[in-house]
Amino acid sequence: MEDDFIGVLVQHSPAILEKYRVRVEDYLYMVSSVKNTEIANAIKYHFGWLDQEGNATSSMQGKGIRSSLCMFACESVGGVLDNALQGAAAVELVHNFSLVHDDIQDQDEERRHRPTVWSIWGVSKALQVGNYIRILSDLTVKNNLNQIMDNNLTLRCTETLSEAYLETVEGQYLDLEYEGKLDITTKEYLEMISRKTGALIGCALKLGALLGTADQDTVKGMSGVGRILGLVFQIRDDYLGIWGLEENTGKNVANDVRRRKNSLPIIHALQNGTQTAVKEISKIYRQDDIDEDDVERVLSILNDVGTTEYMDKLANSYAYNAVSLLETIKIDKVYRIELQELIAFLLERES
Amino acid sequence: MEDDFIGVLVQHSPAILEKYRVRVEDYLYMVSSVKNTEIANAIKYHFGWLDQEGNATSSMQGKGIRSSLCMFACESVGGVLDNALQGAAAVELVHNFSLVHDDIQDQDEERRHRPTVWSIWGVSKALQVGNYIRILSDLTVKNNLNQIMDNNLTLRCTETLSEAYLETVEGQYLDLEYEGKLDITTKEYLEMISRKTGALIGCALKLGALLGTADQDTVKGMSGVGRILGLVFQIRDDYLGIWGLEENTGKNVANDVRRRKNSLPIIHALQNGTQTAVKEISKIYRQDDIDEDDVERVLSILNDVGTTEYMDKLANSYAYNAVSLLETIKIDKVYRIELQELIAFLLERES
Repeated sequence: MEDDFIGVLVQHSPAILEKYRVRVEDYLYMVSSVKNTEIANAIKYHFGWLDQEGNATSSMQGKGIRSSLCMFACESVGGVLDNALQGAAAVELVHNFSLVHDDIQDQDEERRHRPTVWSIWGVSKALQVGNYIRILSDLTVKNNLNQIMDNNLTLRCTETLSEAYLETVEGQYLDLEYEGKLDITTKEYLEMISRKTGALIGCALKLGALLGTADQDTVKGMSGVGRILGLVFQIRDDYLGIWGLEENTGKNVANDVRRRKNSLPIIHALQNGTQTAVKEISKIYRQDDIDEDDVERVLSILNDVGTTEYMDKLANSYAYNAVSLLETIKIDKVYRIELQELIAFLLERES
Repeated sequence: MEDDFIGVLVQHSPAILEKYRVRVEDYLYMVSSVKNTEIANAIKYHFGWLDQEGNATSSMQGKGIRSSLCMFACESVGGVLDNALQGAAAVELVHNFSLVHDDIQDQDEERRHRPTVWSIWGVSKALQVGNYIRILSDLTVKNNLNQIMDNNLTLRCTETLSEAYLETVEGQYLDLEYEGKLDITTKEYLEMISRKTGALIGCALKLGALLGTADQDTVKGMSGVGRILGLVFQIRDDYLGIWGLEENTGKNVANDVRRRKNSLPIIHALQNGTQTAVKEISKIYRQDDIDEDDVERVLSILNDVGTTEYMDKLANSYAYNAVSLLETIKIDKVYRIELQELIAFLLERES
């Protein structure tokens, strides 16, 4: 019965992810309609609006969490929603620029059940498509936002974006440095994902708040809530990388184990497993190839160490922190409930 | 005797490339000293201050053309040199970010006779090191420049940088689209390099002028001169890609032919060669591998078509345009002569 309940929760997409979607999508589509047809097509393909041949297909791929949070923050602090649109688009563009480069880096051939940009257009063009998306983000703030906001606020927004993106890259780089290092502590790992994922989600809420209110405590509070939501998001991502089902994630079960990824469950097991368990994981992770027996063995060790319970507890405690911090921000109850609903979704999402 | 004269000219590095060098280098070194040691080391290695092991080596690699031009523009229009430092660093950082990504794209294992960042740290980390350098450029303008300039001018500079970089990526992308297309006209090619190389060199002079004077005609003039210098620079680059000597360029003679690069000499020969010549080049360029005989054959066709003369004439006519445009800008004669000296250098440089 509990499974069914979770199933219902997950199928119900939270209001925050729905109510700003069309508006942000229309704006992103406009921004993506750049002069060079092939670049435009690659960007639109990445977002899900075109197929490989350039024919119109479906609506935007991805949950749009960051842009939705930016719009939400602006609306909830009493701002004019229109003023947050450029910020929402900018943060979504930065995120998608990262995805295009991530796929090159990880040599992932599929994202959201479709071939990745590099696997269609090649690494060189994908690199430039990614860089191009990044510039669109810059120009969205510098030109479009600057038309409706004063220079001071525009500069503050560009700074916020640059600093968040600096942290993101630092986190991504640390993530690479941690590869193959089996003595990383969970604390170090959590600090890394706070940068890699938390900074940009924090930035999304901060930008929205900045564009909606002059009250700096509110801006700071929103930024803090976003940072924690990033941790909740990434912990669930690490969970799904091992226990997510293929029909939901588009990836094999235990995909992160097969790729010998040093994600939170592995780090937890290495820190808390018996000496034998630690030796076994270390041995398997040092092999060039991992077979099905190895995968089964790692999953069984994670089970013995109680890693899923740890992940659940940790994500829930961060969620609790986010909700507590949210209590201190002056927003209407209806918005508080909406954000709580999103937090519940982040805790239990299956894809 | 003519050869000797050219030799003397080339060995004499123009004043513009020398007089701001230490100042820009010190500033870039400071900006590159970031928190994450490995990222800092990779950036400093790329600039030439450290070896692979992180030990201090020599001074900055590269000519620093863009940063020098930015400083020069500011000084020559009567500005305070200190005010151009952040702009100079920003444009040099954007350029070097591009180089790090270019080396990944072209799978070049060496740059300036040293292993490239990706060939030491791997593609994934090099991708992030590049992205990091790009953010350092943003932050240099947004934070450091904003401390000494008003918001309006800071925003204008960030816009100028973003727009130039947008054009650069468009140019780089077109360059990739032109690969293997043997019916590109020289006109299309020149428009492409105006974006790929001209935009950022134009931006360097424009930024310096913006930071040195409020006179918009001067800003526009400087920007235009830079755009043309970019063409002169790239035409010489394409020349050196085929006729440059290994001891100067660090690359094999006819390297661009071996890589079947669709550079200006090839495009010129395809447009102006006899039908037989065109067929031969096309056949050779469609082969998977090119042997020494093929290289010799292509060089011989280029010789028959008079491609080096065409390159010389074209570069000289752009140089003439730059000098003429320079005449319309209100700067002291001493600066005019310095820029003319740089133009002469760009026409005849051997590396």
